[in-house]
Amino acid sequence: MRIDGQPYRTIFPDADGISVRVIDQTRLPFAFELQRLASLDDAARAIRTMVVRGAPLIGVTAAYGLALAMREDSSADGIDRAVAQLAATRPTAINLRWALDRVAGNLRQIQPAERFGRAFAEAGRIAEEDVANCRAIGNHGSRIFTDLAREKGRPLNVLTHCNAGWLATVDWGTALAPIYVAHEAGVPLHVFVDETRPRNQGAALTAFELNGHGVPHTVIADNAGGHLMQHGQVDLCIVGSDRTTAAGDVCNKIGTYLKALAAHDNRVPFYAALPFSTIDWTLNDGVAEIPIEERDGREVSHLTGRLADGTFATVEVVSPGSPVANPAFDVTPARLVTGLITERGVCAANPEGLLTLYPERRQAA
Amino acid sequence: MRIDGQPYRTIFPDADGISVRVIDQTRLPFAFELQRLASLDDAARAIRTMVVRGAPLIGVTAAYGLALAMREDSSADGIDRAVAQLAATRPTAINLRWALDRVAGNLRQIQPAERFGRAFAEAGRIAEEDVANCRAIGNHGSRIFTDLAREKGRPLNVLTHCNAGWLATVDWGTALAPIYVAHEAGVPLHVFVDETRPRNQGAALTAFELNGHGVPHTVIADNAGGHLMQHGQVDLCIVGSDRTTAAGDVCNKIGTYLKALAAHDNRVPFYAALPFSTIDWTLNDGVAEIPIEERDGREVSHLTGRLADGTFATVEVVSPGSPVANPAFDVTPARLVTGLITERGVCAANPEGLLTLYPERRQAA
Repeated sequence: MRIDGQPYRTIFPDADGISVRVIDQTRLPFAFELQRLASLDDAARAIRTMVVRGAPLIGVTAAYGLALAMREDSSADGIDRAVAQLAATRPTAINLRWALDRVAGNLRQIQPAERFGRAFAEAGRIAEEDVANCRAIGNHGSRIFTDLAREKGRPLNVLTHCNAGWLATVDWGTALAPIYVAHEAGVPLHVFVDETRPRNQGAALTAFELNGHGVPHTVIADNAGGHLMQHGQVDLCIVGSDRTTAAGDVCNKIGTYLKALAAHDNRVPFYAALPFSTIDWTLNDGVAEIPIEERDGREVSHLTGRLADGTFATVEVVSPGSPVANPAFDVTPARLVTGLITERGVCAANPEGLLTLYPERRQAA
Repeated sequence: MRIDGQPYRTIFPDADGISVRVIDQTRLPFAFELQRLASLDDAARAIRTMVVRGAPLIGVTAAYGLALAMREDSSADGIDRAVAQLAATRPTAINLRWALDRVAGNLRQIQPAERFGRAFAEAGRIAEEDVANCRAIGNHGSRIFTDLAREKGRPLNVLTHCNAGWLATVDWGTALAPIYVAHEAGVPLHVFVDETRPRNQGAALTAFELNGHGVPHTVIADNAGGHLMQHGQVDLCIVGSDRTTAAGDVCNKIGTYLKALAAHDNRVPFYAALPFSTIDWTLNDGVAEIPIEERDGREVSHLTGRLADGTFATVEVVSPGSPVANPAFDVTPARLVTGLITERGVCAANPEGLLTLYPERRQAA
C-alpha cells in the first residue's frame, strides 16, 4: 500500500541479498523509519519489541530470521536454536510457529551450505503467499462493499477495530484489504476507526494507513461505536481474527465482542476477514477453549505519545495505587458474525460454512 | 466519603460564612487540593473549567455561585445576570438549570438585603438534599448487593462505567452509593472500573474514590468488560444517568450502551442509579429524542497525565491529520436495564415502574 503516494511493503529483502528491511512500527504514526535486520538477533528483537507486529507479519519476519540464522550457524543445532529463540518472542502467535515449522522442515532435508539460500527464498515465498492471500481476501470482501454501496446509493460507512491492515501483514491486510480494493475500484466509503485501547493500534496504525492511502476515515473512542450504530451511521463492521474456531467463533483484539453485540442489536452486518492460517480446526467453543493473553497493566495505566515540541513522553493516567487488569483479546461467538471472508471466499460463520470453503478438512474430520 | 481516612464533601461552606470550598477535580487523581470560591466569577469558572463536574455537584455549585453574586449585586438585574452567566457554563446539565431556578425563584420574593443570606442557606439545603437523596439511593441499592452476595456466597464483582461517585455529587454518589453502603455494611465486594475514554473519569476519579475509601477494585480498558462478563467475572453492573426518560431509557457516558448489551447477552443484572432530577418526564424514546453532545476531538487525540518526574504533560496519540469524532453520551434502551434505583426505591425500567415510585406524575399525565 502507499505512504504519501509511495508504495511499500512492511518487510522486503534488502538489495544486498543477505538482509531484510522492515518498517519500524514502534515509531508510527509520528515517524516513518526503516530498520535493517541482518542477523537472528536482529529479527528476534524486532518481533519481541514490536518493531514488527501482526500475526502474518510476525510469521514472515520469523521465517527471514531463521534464514539469517543460517548465515551464522547452519548446523542442525543451529536450526533448533534459532527456532527456539524465534518461537519464544511471542509465544501465542499462531502464524509464528507455523512459519518456523515450514522453513525448518525444508532445511532439515538439505545440506548446511544450501540452507541460507533455501531459507531466504522460502521466507520470500511465505511473504508472497501472504500478499496473495490478503489480496484474495480483499477481492472477495470488496464484493460485499460494492453490493452494499449499490443498495445504499451513497458512501458506505464502515467500522473497524484495532489494526488488521497492511501493517499487520506484508501488504493489503486482512480486514482492511476489502476496504483498499473497494476504494481503489471507486466505491465511495468512509471508515470509523476505533482507537483500540489500551495499545491504540487503531488511532496510531489504522489511521496512519488510511491517511497514507487516501481513504476517508474518522478516529473514535472505543466507547462510541454502539451510539453510531444506533443512529444508522455504520453500514458494516469488519475486523480481523487472531484465531478462528471450526465453529466460526472469532478471537480478536479485546473489545471486538462489544462491537459485534452492537452490530447485532442494530442489524448492522459484522464480518471477520482472516487467512486460513488463523483457523484452529481443533476448537469448537471459542469462549470456553481459547486462552486469553493477560498483558502488563502498564499498557492501561501509562500512555506514550508526542509532546507539543515533537519529542515523545510516557504519562501515567490511572489513579496511583489502583490495580489494573489487561486481557488482550476476546471471543466473538459465531452467532454474532454475519460472515467470514478468507482467501477462498465468503462463508457463513458456522462449521458447514467453513467446510464448504475448506472441503479437504471434511475429509480430515 | 473518606480520602486517606479523612471524611470530605466535594463542596462545603467556608468557616468565614461568605465563601465555599471545593475539591479541585482537575488535579485528581495525582494531587488533592481545595479551592476557595468567593465570587460569582469564581463559581462560574470552577464549573466551566471542570474544577467541579457531575450534574448534582454542578447544580449545588451554581446555587452557591448565585448566592455569592448577591454579595456583589443583589438587585433584580443582578439575579438575572448571575443566572445567565452560571447557566451558560455547561448548557446541557439538567440539574444546573433546576438549581438556579429554585434559588432565583426564592430570591425574587424577598428584599435585596436579605438575598445573600437566603441564597447561601438555600444552596446549603440543596446540598443537604443531594446528600440525603444519594444516601437513600445507596440504601435502596445496597439491598440488591446484599441479596446477591448472599445468593453467590462469595465476594461480589461489580462493574461500573465513568464516575457516578461522590465526586460527581456532594457525597455518596449515585452509582457508587450502593457500593459504599454495602461496603460499610461488610458486604464483600470488588469493583471493575472502566477507564472511560476519552476523559478517563473511571481511571482518574472512580479509582481515586474507591482507593481513598478502601473499596477493592481493578481498573480495566473499556474494551474489557464484555470479556469479563463472558467468563462469569461480573455479577452486576451499575451506572449513573445524565438523563432518564419516562420510559426508563438511560442516557449516560458514551460506552454505557455497549456494557448493557454485554450484560444482557450474559444475563448479568444491569442497574442505573439516579436521583429524580435526572428524569425527563417529557421524553419516551431516548435514542430518538435525547440530543447527544459532540465534544472536542482533542479529548480523543490528546491525553494529559503525570510524567515520571511528577510534572504533567499532554501527549498526542492519534495519527496526525486523521479526523476525530467525540460523542459524549449514549442511550441505553430500557429493555437492557434490569432496574432503576432512585431516592424513592428500586423500580422496573418502564413507564409503570417509574410511575409506581413517582405517583404524583400519574396525576400530571
